[in-house]
Amino acid sequence: MDAFDPHFLEAGCREEVGALLEKTLALALDFKTRDRVGHHRSVSQLLEKYVVPLPEKGCSSADIMEFVDGLLRESINWSSPMFMGFNDAGNSVAGLMGSIVEATCQQNLINSDFCARAGTFVEIGVIRWLRELVGYASPATPTSVSDLGGVATTGGTCSNMYGMLMARKNSYPGFSREGLPPGARPRIFVAADITHYSVAAAVGLIGLGTDSLVKVPTKNFRYDLGALDAALKDSLERGEDAVCVVANAGDSRTLTLDSLERLIDVVRRRAPKCWIHVDACNGGQLIFSHKHREKLRGIERADSIALDPHKVFNVPYTLSCFLFREPAQLSGFWTSSTLIMRDPWALGQLTPNIGSKSWSSLKLYLLMKHLGRSALGEMIDRRIELAAAFRELLSRDARFHLVTAQSDVNAVPFFYVGTMDARTADPARLYRVNERLYAAMLKDGEFYVHGFGIKDDGDCLGRGQNQALFVLRFMSGQDGLKEAELRRLIDGLARLGEEAARRAD
Amino acid sequence: MDAFDPHFLEAGCREEVGALLEKTLALALDFKTRDRVGHHRSVSQLLEKYVVPLPEKGCSSADIMEFVDGLLRESINWSSPMFMGFNDAGNSVAGLMGSIVEATCQQNLINSDFCARAGTFVEIGVIRWLRELVGYASPATPTSVSDLGGVATTGGTCSNMYGMLMARKNSYPGFSREGLPPGARPRIFVAADITHYSVAAAVGLIGLGTDSLVKVPTKNFRYDLGALDAALKDSLERGEDAVCVVANAGDSRTLTLDSLERLIDVVRRRAPKCWIHVDACNGGQLIFSHKHREKLRGIERADSIALDPHKVFNVPYTLSCFLFREPAQLSGFWTSSTLIMRDPWALGQLTPNIGSKSWSSLKLYLLMKHLGRSALGEMIDRRIELAAAFRELLSRDARFHLVTAQSDVNAVPFFYVGTMDARTADPARLYRVNERLYAAMLKDGEFYVHGFGIKDDGDCLGRGQNQALFVLRFMSGQDGLKEAELRRLIDGLARLGEEAARRAD
Repeated sequence: MDAFDPHFLEAGCREEVGALLEKTLALALDFKTRDRVGHHRSVSQLLEKYVVPLPEKGCSSADIMEFVDGLLRESINWSSPMFMGFNDAGNSVAGLMGSIVEATCQQNLINSDFCARAGTFVEIGVIRWLRELVGYASPATPTSVSDLGGVATTGGTCSNMYGMLMARKNSYPGFSREGLPPGARPRIFVAADITHYSVAAAVGLIGLGTDSLVKVPTKNFRYDLGALDAALKDSLERGEDAVCVVANAGDSRTLTLDSLERLIDVVRRRAPKCWIHVDACNGGQLIFSHKHREKLRGIERADSIALDPHKVFNVPYTLSCFLFREPAQLSGFWTSSTLIMRDPWALGQLTPNIGSKSWSSLKLYLLMKHLGRSALGEMIDRRIELAAAFRELLSRDARFHLVTAQSDVNAVPFFYVGTMDARTADPARLYRVNERLYAAMLKDGEFYVHGFGIKDDGDCLGRGQNQALFVLRFMSGQDGLKEAELRRLIDGLARLGEEAARRAD
Repeated sequence: MDAFDPHFLEAGCREEVGALLEKTLALALDFKTRDRVGHHRSVSQLLEKYVVPLPEKGCSSADIMEFVDGLLRESINWSSPMFMGFNDAGNSVAGLMGSIVEATCQQNLINSDFCARAGTFVEIGVIRWLRELVGYASPATPTSVSDLGGVATTGGTCSNMYGMLMARKNSYPGFSREGLPPGARPRIFVAADITHYSVAAAVGLIGLGTDSLVKVPTKNFRYDLGALDAALKDSLERGEDAVCVVANAGDSRTLTLDSLERLIDVVRRRAPKCWIHVDACNGGQLIFSHKHREKLRGIERADSIALDPHKVFNVPYTLSCFLFREPAQLSGFWTSSTLIMRDPWALGQLTPNIGSKSWSSLKLYLLMKHLGRSALGEMIDRRIELAAAFRELLSRDARFHLVTAQSDVNAVPFFYVGTMDARTADPARLYRVNERLYAAMLKDGEFYVHGFGIKDDGDCLGRGQNQALFVLRFMSGQDGLKEAELRRLIDGLARLGEEAARRAD
């Protein structure tokens, strides 16, 4: 091996490797501060460049560096202020510092005694902070992970699955040993067309079967609580098992919040033993805000909660957190190895589908320490103000039509109408124009808002709730975003919309 | 916000943030090149330092830097050559370069069209390389992820779970919709006390129930194939469903390889429709070695395989890969959202418990490109030679006793006997002495080998297979490891062993 081009980090080549990694970091930061969002090669070009024969011989680290540079030129930059599709910028400085430590220092959070020493207690610390913010109680001093009532996971999909697993255990304590008991008729209540697809995936994965999903009617992108009450009542009268109600603190399309306090009242009254899981992956950001925290009132009464720091708290991928109100519920959550169990601080006891686990929670610990709750709350408040500003701009612009009457958090769904009148135009044409606008925007790559099909749950077209819409969705999750970018976005969308409308003729 | 102490990365503070992240990286590299493995504060000290009240106010980035420095002083360094407990050093230069990009650039591999453009095709490329190395065929040019037959996951526990999910679907195609069919009697065959605990966890998690596990007798830490054949025969005669046989290509304690070719012959003859999953998380490293690849012969006939690059291929946490022989088996693996499905290149279609997914596969792609298969194979060969050298040193040292007659890969299980005679000493005393040695080593922190209780499956004590042993396990996964460190380890173990023996009197 050439001493100046090492393959492995050792003490003797610390400087050479350090220089290479510094250069890599510089490429990454250049990429993240690039204004332009997209850069689309065609699929065939990407296949040709990256899907290549297995290399038998290697190359130099300079070749690798050049290759990484090329990769980033062909990647999509969610960290630019011009990316207004999701909150996941991953731009917090402390989050990035933690991410670098996570990415390099090889702490394994499965176990505390020989894998991750300080790391374990960092995760315990941050889980307790989150519990306090959602309103869950914790013992003054934990004596083992059984006192913790939460754990860092790989994503909201995993956290929602843990909610379903705990609900399963709550109704069927022997499930993980024996499977579904004979004659059991599990029912999982979700908001029709609104609940995130990970819930259905989890229900299928953990063996309750997606046929057990009860899709409850909605209105304005949240549960119709009367309909939920009726669905629970009917189900119980048929002798079915009300295993879980999944509430949304910010549905994944419009970030509309269920009325948690009232929803929980309905469920507790009708089905006292039913597990209540709140998917707060999107709306959970409000826990930091002194101003908007109130909108989540009642969340502390839920049995479990999914939070998604990598989505809404501005830390790099990946980090989600699963919290459950009663830490003792852990008992029997899953059957573990004595190898892990003999360490009372082994966090691996809480993650049945995760073994070796990276130090993902460090990012959030550092972020919360760096900003404190107050500055984090202000970050969230700024997002909400920007979303309100965007809503205001669109409401005065006849070329666009708003889908919801208000934004509970920081998402604004809308669509382009151009010179059409939204309430008299052919809805199929509106759909087509906006779908084309979205495709053109992807190809253009200058900016991004999300786009998807959805039903008109708030009846913004006056053609009933079931009318299909193709909506664009603005989200204000980038801290570098200012009003200038909002105007640039609107101009760009109008330009692409005009062209899409012309082509749809 | 102080302009010189930014909270968020933006183009305007690129240089300030870059300097902070470079410093963080330097701390991380100092840590990784530290010789010393451990640094143990007591639990009460760690609780006091890290489990603190929620901060309302923030602090400076200099404070965060100092805090990170302290954290690493209190962390365990698996990257030191003196860490000889596992292979997971995460020290490859290209792997670290990839890890930094993964940690900062926020590519989301769930989806290709607006989340991860080049990233998607990098993952497709590396999965195809792995398929080639295990002997699975791939189409010349893929036309969608349905042609892929594999995916990057978060860890071996997840990859093994995917194996169980595919086995479940193979026996019960409607499971994810309807759950376990009435009257079904699933059986999952595992090697008693040897198969990794993640398999039982998965079987419990996905609703087959851990009662469906059939624990097949073993000998010398691998299946007794006659016993496996008999277990399959008996089970089928009782009308049970042979859902899956889990084979080990390197069991997680001794890295012993099942005789895959013969095992697969047994299963295919007795239960042709039974799914065969190979847990190759530990032994999978042999795929790179021209010299030792032959030991995995037959693996290409398995239905699915779990590989664990973050464990044995020297890339930082986390990265595991799940491969399945017939890409078309993906169909119906899980029910996904149309949101993902409308993109034919969305890798999220293959990961039912993972939504947002970081660019973990980049690390392995870059490593394989940097070293090529040949230098990677040489890395593995060096490991195997070092394990042989360690075995040789111990075999000539009366103070230690070897547990297995040979090392299939690069693990050497052994225990300290000191002045005792292994075959006449009280086995309980041997257990106690080695357990104490292990605890003393953890406290000492200068070096590390793994330690755990295990049954004496090779009958190294002559007291039968069921005799309990506490064994220490050497593993040669650090590329910086040389014979000098082996001798230092042996001296250190002898020193701690002597003291442990004295105390056990």
